[in-house]
Amino acid sequence: MIKILVDAMGGDNAPAAIVQGAVAALKNDEELYLILTGRQAEIEAELAKAEYDKARLEIVDCPDVIDMNDIPTEAVKRKQSSLMAAYWMLKKEDDLCALVTAGSTGATIVGGQLILGRIRGVKRPALCPAIPNSRGGVTLLCDCGANAECKPVMLCQFAVLASSYAKVGFGIKQPKVGLLSNGTEEHKGDPLHQETYKYLSQMKGIDFVGNVEGRDIMLGICDVVVSDGFSGNIALKSIEGCGKMVLGVMKKEFSATLRSKVGYLFMRKAIKNMRSQLDFDRYGGALLLGLKKIVIKSHGSSKPHTIAAAIANAAAIYRGGLVPSVEKMLEKVDLDTLVPETD
Amino acid sequence: MIKILVDAMGGDNAPAAIVQGAVAALKNDEELYLILTGRQAEIEAELAKAEYDKARLEIVDCPDVIDMNDIPTEAVKRKQSSLMAAYWMLKKEDDLCALVTAGSTGATIVGGQLILGRIRGVKRPALCPAIPNSRGGVTLLCDCGANAECKPVMLCQFAVLASSYAKVGFGIKQPKVGLLSNGTEEHKGDPLHQETYKYLSQMKGIDFVGNVEGRDIMLGICDVVVSDGFSGNIALKSIEGCGKMVLGVMKKEFSATLRSKVGYLFMRKAIKNMRSQLDFDRYGGALLLGLKKIVIKSHGSSKPHTIAAAIANAAAIYRGGLVPSVEKMLEKVDLDTLVPETD
Repeated sequence: MIKILVDAMGGDNAPAAIVQGAVAALKNDEELYLILTGRQAEIEAELAKAEYDKARLEIVDCPDVIDMNDIPTEAVKRKQSSLMAAYWMLKKEDDLCALVTAGSTGATIVGGQLILGRIRGVKRPALCPAIPNSRGGVTLLCDCGANAECKPVMLCQFAVLASSYAKVGFGIKQPKVGLLSNGTEEHKGDPLHQETYKYLSQMKGIDFVGNVEGRDIMLGICDVVVSDGFSGNIALKSIEGCGKMVLGVMKKEFSATLRSKVGYLFMRKAIKNMRSQLDFDRYGGALLLGLKKIVIKSHGSSKPHTIAAAIANAAAIYRGGLVPSVEKMLEKVDLDTLVPETD
Repeated sequence: MIKILVDAMGGDNAPAAIVQGAVAALKNDEELYLILTGRQAEIEAELAKAEYDKARLEIVDCPDVIDMNDIPTEAVKRKQSSLMAAYWMLKKEDDLCALVTAGSTGATIVGGQLILGRIRGVKRPALCPAIPNSRGGVTLLCDCGANAECKPVMLCQFAVLASSYAKVGFGIKQPKVGLLSNGTEEHKGDPLHQETYKYLSQMKGIDFVGNVEGRDIMLGICDVVVSDGFSGNIALKSIEGCGKMVLGVMKKEFSATLRSKVGYLFMRKAIKNMRSQLDFDRYGGALLLGLKKIVIKSHGSSKPHTIAAAIANAAAIYRGGLVPSVEKMLEKVDLDTLVPETD
């Protein structure tokens, strides 16, 4: 059995979308066992509408819910909340292997650091989404928002964390790693990125291809794009905004005239294919890398299929052995020797 | 007459695309007078294929061409190059009002600073493209790559520069200004952005709406997005990459089956409309703001219509009085009093 915790109260569509997603995930994978944390009555009301294997789903009643307006460092103290209660269980119980939440990003990061804890040697956890690229694969962007301020050693660790994810989650044997900058030349960027460039090119086990630009994320020049959390967040959200605008314009234009509506009938399948290739939520959200267990942060606006995808992805990464892989790579790289200031 | 210099040798498709663009621009605006700098024989060979008003086009022979591999600070010394010769003329001759180039970004910035010079009080020039947004207008992103390292005072000036451009270039009376960050809350970002937030909210004549995220650029939440050049470049290129990927996937899917090909015939006009709404080059390129005269940096891959658009945009901004508008706004804001460290 793979036991996964699901924060049933996180996100704009909770608990309905979360519970429906959990039910769908259970159906797709007979090895799964899910523990939903949240307001029991609300979760049960939602479950009453569904059919599922009751032997593989459990509810832990948590009266408290953390929302987007709560200050993360305060929220972490609320042990009765669906998110923090899940973190405490994940920490204490060896047979629980992952947590999926669509709740507050800040609270998820702080809870991960303070309750669950980091893998030995990891300075900071990092958020890492899998972005579809034009080669038909994905590009992992790490960090995309957990750390607005970074040091070179952190960026070097992001390379290790995301390379492990690329190997375990996507079967990429030797992931190519690029450093997000404002140009491809070695001297580009500020001192943080120039210094990181130097270290990344010396790191054992990291296949560093040099600086990459924002456009390369979706063009799929490399498998992993390392970034400070400030720029990474801007890149991710710029891409999201562009995708949203393009789909909006398309929708408007394709229904503007009778002629285009007729065309749409012929093209429905092509458009569906297109949308699925551009689906940012195919893997359910961003992995919060560097923690002792697997944590996936799904988008606040997650729908049932997003949550189902996040649970499936968490199970797959657990089966692949993400955490041991990170530990092994960190050991091999020996960052303490390579990068002087490892404070 | 509005006299504009055009670097005929800059960009991947020079001189053919540049010369064709110049000819198109001349046809569209009878008040224009263009001076093309570059290798005379090559330009003349291209002009021989076109019909145009010879009384309004002049060539200045420049044997030297700066390319993307040249180091900008070295390139600026090459007075015989099509770009630097143009800058020298722009500096010396009062009746020349603008320069359009699709050449090296770095050389364009350095030439602008060292040869043409900044408007009195401007710390650093900034690159500012007009990005189409989902409200049907544009969002000005400033800076998108001229300054990888910034201080708060520079970011505050970018707000002034781009607000002037919004007024003069797009007729927006009171441009809304956002600060690009990794979240909308006031405390988001690193110390640079936190400090800039504080000053921007106190600036006279600037309608500051607070922090904005990457997605807001294309969603058109505000007219001006202020950014350090590092993150701004990443945002711009992430958007470009996403746009390129979406159009690529669309092209593939829409021609994948007979059915979708038939649909395409019906939808041709809708798709054309869509593409034009997503055309990043509608205004010909990024304005290099803060210099004593108008300089537009077009994309290296510019086609004739891009260059024609850049020339038309330069003329429009000149007519609107961009430089006097910037001078007036800078005076009103009085940054030296507002921001302590104005080194």
